[in-house]
Amino acid sequence: MNIKIRKAKKSDGKAFVELILGLAEFEKLPPPDKKAQKRLLKDAFSHKPLINVLLAFDKSSGNKPVGYALYFFTYSSFRALPTLYLEDIYISPDHRSKGIGKMYLDELKKIAQKKKCGRMEWVVLDWNTNAIKFYDKLGTRQMNEWITYRMDL
Amino acid sequence: MNIKIRKAKKSDGKAFVELILGLAEFEKLPPPDKKAQKRLLKDAFSHKPLINVLLAFDKSSGNKPVGYALYFFTYSSFRALPTLYLEDIYISPDHRSKGIGKMYLDELKKIAQKKKCGRMEWVVLDWNTNAIKFYDKLGTRQMNEWITYRMDL
Repeated sequence: MNIKIRKAKKSDGKAFVELILGLAEFEKLPPPDKKAQKRLLKDAFSHKPLINVLLAFDKSSGNKPVGYALYFFTYSSFRALPTLYLEDIYISPDHRSKGIGKMYLDELKKIAQKKKCGRMEWVVLDWNTNAIKFYDKLGTRQMNEWITYRMDL
Repeated sequence: MNIKIRKAKKSDGKAFVELILGLAEFEKLPPPDKKAQKRLLKDAFSHKPLINVLLAFDKSSGNKPVGYALYFFTYSSFRALPTLYLEDIYISPDHRSKGIGKMYLDELKKIAQKKKCGRMEWVVLDWNTNAIKFYDKLGTRQMNEWITYRMDL
């Protein structure tokens, strides 16, 4: 396997949307509908993007897109430093457990350090035991004392 | 009591830092040190601010600063809409339980709707029962199925 991870380009739009639909299916969550997919592409590839996307390609399999990570920067007020927030990370089923997740985390860590971030953060669904095992081995910690609230608008 | 909530200005820097030290003490978390305080002011009041700050003033008490909220915008990939993320909200002890928290949430909701956000999100420490009771009455929901991970850099 020969994996390459790089920043997504406008011409990768279709592959990006297919991967995001794959994640929604895996997480059993409502996927972005057609209108939302259009907004996603605008928000990822406009002049002032709101989100950053890294795609993974399998060069040993015709450069097939096999994963994506979507991130942006938040902020820690007590550290007074930006945080790299990993909103999504997804590897297609036939490419899991092959080290691509670790490649992503290493790449994201480099980006975060370059941006002088104090932290990286993300969330995981509590039934996703494979992901939890992977994250627990990375030297990260679960922030169990914090409860997340959401208000839909 | 006559409370006014408005965007913080550069000249509010000292009041903002004092309030943030109050929150760190309340949350029993390490406060921003002198260097971090300097970065905070830069990140709040520079030409391209990373964070947004709303201050509350008690006009019936010499316009005393009595609270702050710090927020920024994140993003939901499945909704393909920005999220208003409330990083900090703090009311000084002598001004709690007087409706200022509700005033803040109403103001933040207006800002979020103006920015076409799909959601507002925040976290709360699990021992902060007063805040939890307040949030539970707002028609928000706890996202208990999501575990937050943090990697310090």
